[in-house]
Amino acid sequence: MIYLDNAATTAMYPECGEDLIKYSSLDFFNPSAPYAKSIALKTKIESIRKEFLESLHAPDGEIIFTSSGTEADNMALFGAKKWKNAKIIVSEGEHSAVYNSAKALKERGCNVNFAPIDKGGAVNMEKLAELLDEDVALVSVMHASNETGAINDISEISRLVRIYSPKAVIHSDGVQAYLKMPVNLRLLDVDLYTISGHKFHAPKGVGALYIKKGVRIRPVLYGGGQEMGLRSSTENVGAICALSTANAIGNANFDKNYSKKRDLVEYFRLKLIDALPTAQIISPQNSIPNILSVAFENIRGEVLLHILEKDGILVGIGSACSSNKESRFKKLFKLDEGHSEGIVRFSFSEFNNKSELDFVVEKIVLAMHEFGEFKRK
Amino acid sequence: MIYLDNAATTAMYPECGEDLIKYSSLDFFNPSAPYAKSIALKTKIESIRKEFLESLHAPDGEIIFTSSGTEADNMALFGAKKWKNAKIIVSEGEHSAVYNSAKALKERGCNVNFAPIDKGGAVNMEKLAELLDEDVALVSVMHASNETGAINDISEISRLVRIYSPKAVIHSDGVQAYLKMPVNLRLLDVDLYTISGHKFHAPKGVGALYIKKGVRIRPVLYGGGQEMGLRSSTENVGAICALSTANAIGNANFDKNYSKKRDLVEYFRLKLIDALPTAQIISPQNSIPNILSVAFENIRGEVLLHILEKDGILVGIGSACSSNKESRFKKLFKLDEGHSEGIVRFSFSEFNNKSELDFVVEKIVLAMHEFGEFKRK
Repeated sequence: MIYLDNAATTAMYPECGEDLIKYSSLDFFNPSAPYAKSIALKTKIESIRKEFLESLHAPDGEIIFTSSGTEADNMALFGAKKWKNAKIIVSEGEHSAVYNSAKALKERGCNVNFAPIDKGGAVNMEKLAELLDEDVALVSVMHASNETGAINDISEISRLVRIYSPKAVIHSDGVQAYLKMPVNLRLLDVDLYTISGHKFHAPKGVGALYIKKGVRIRPVLYGGGQEMGLRSSTENVGAICALSTANAIGNANFDKNYSKKRDLVEYFRLKLIDALPTAQIISPQNSIPNILSVAFENIRGEVLLHILEKDGILVGIGSACSSNKESRFKKLFKLDEGHSEGIVRFSFSEFNNKSELDFVVEKIVLAMHEFGEFKRK
Repeated sequence: MIYLDNAATTAMYPECGEDLIKYSSLDFFNPSAPYAKSIALKTKIESIRKEFLESLHAPDGEIIFTSSGTEADNMALFGAKKWKNAKIIVSEGEHSAVYNSAKALKERGCNVNFAPIDKGGAVNMEKLAELLDEDVALVSVMHASNETGAINDISEISRLVRIYSPKAVIHSDGVQAYLKMPVNLRLLDVDLYTISGHKFHAPKGVGALYIKKGVRIRPVLYGGGQEMGLRSSTENVGAICALSTANAIGNANFDKNYSKKRDLVEYFRLKLIDALPTAQIISPQNSIPNILSVAFENIRGEVLLHILEKDGILVGIGSACSSNKESRFKKLFKLDEGHSEGIVRFSFSEFNNKSELDFVVEKIVLAMHEFGEFKRK
């Protein structure tokens, strides 16, 4: 199998499995119980919070562990304070966890504005800036696009928001960015930042929301008051420890893996353009180094996906984190008619290699000869 | 170690660990992706939904997998439809996941009524009945109390609600009841029912909300629309499969384990009363067979807990699923002054045995001689 859908989910590092087992069997205690074995777990969780704050370069903030990036995004969108007639600004390119939360807020009467994106997937800065005024309560722009890997200039967005919308809370969904590119929240100056474990080789079912010191949000889950009263539920100790393990591995190998993925994606891009000049690369040149979105001519992305699947190659066709298969991005990327149905997303991990990519390009070319552009001409 | 805090959390069955690993490493795919490996996971999750519906004796309902019992309770409380001036009725004995959700609804202007409980922890049926009228939108009464194991007569509650509050949605938190006592939703006639994995030897981080066919609730997590549009987030495949495994083991051994725990709790109750006649049993006689709450005289529960801890005995002092250690139940149980601070909860699993309990009673008697009732007299 050649797995090129790492933006949908990643294989867990084996080391994380040890955490899942240990903290469910040997050390299975409820961290909120008052005996020493539980207190030790509570202490461990607190130290993992600190690890993440350091890893995010925001040591004086807070980390709320959640069950997913989606939950963290929902906390940000629903929890941020909004006053009467307040405006909410969300980029058109957001993951559905933010996008559909924003739509739900709109249905509840909030003044939600969707900032347009450019055809590569990044938010259009001029149009975003035009939306900013003193009534803005919340701005949510993702750090890197799950559709194309395009990076939004969050520090510039924050700079503008602080000037023109000084009361606004700034959230960024960092699910695709964290451990894929340098993330320094001190530079980004955001109030809220989302990460998700299963995108960086931790297990599914765990994520986190960073909250800047002094920023107040409302809980989304009420109950025992775990997670500083902002998120209740028995702490998922094993998953939180596994998140920490994946974080440590990811950080320790960050430079090496970053270069490797950058090399892979460049190799693939050049090889693909060379072999198939009609393929249009959607991802901007300066995207995160593990996503390449491509529009193929006269073929449906799903058809190409299934052809490649027969050869053991797994690729994406836009957000797999959605049960609604019809992507709203087809229109947003402003592709010509021949390419608009042919979007395929290739997303890499450090476990891929160039010989795999040679094979993939070869199979794509074969598929295109049989079903795609060459067939139709 | 003698673990008698199984109402707080349980040790995971080793078989569940295999699921956690398998579906994070070998079969780690995102169930919402369109290739066969993902579709197989989606199919597996659908079949697990059916397993739970059958296990709950409610084959035509829906199962929404959540990250916890707390999340399922929050979905029920916040998601159930409420109209202007609608009443909400919640028992005073609810777990904080329901109780604090109800308090949050009250703060938002809802007309929330707390139905009093009797001193054993079950809701007072007469007082509950008095609260019922046509304005009631939601009734939430737990199936079995996490504090005492007391069982609420949910089928009788449903019968009364259907008569006097025909528009009301009925929710029951079954976190402590499911696989601890027979649960038949056809008999209970509830609309919503919560279960939580880590209370029945599945891992932490997974639970479910049963929704009766035709009952509509609002999502609490917006995003990709997984879980029938009611709960978004990449499906936590490993945890859901582990939940299924624990369910199968629990069901296959239900009768045997039920008898064993019933024997253990009765053995412990009699032995304890015999050795310490001043100890007051809080749990009603007909509680679930794995919880015995006891009020000891002239000792604080936490003191006794830590004395027993030195001998490797772990017990509870009320809800460990709470980071707030001050229990609201001390008053509710209407204990005399000598006993009101001395509540300890012993909760059993099939992995306990009588010789452990002999040792525990012996150590309690020693502790009471040194620190408790005998000392003060």
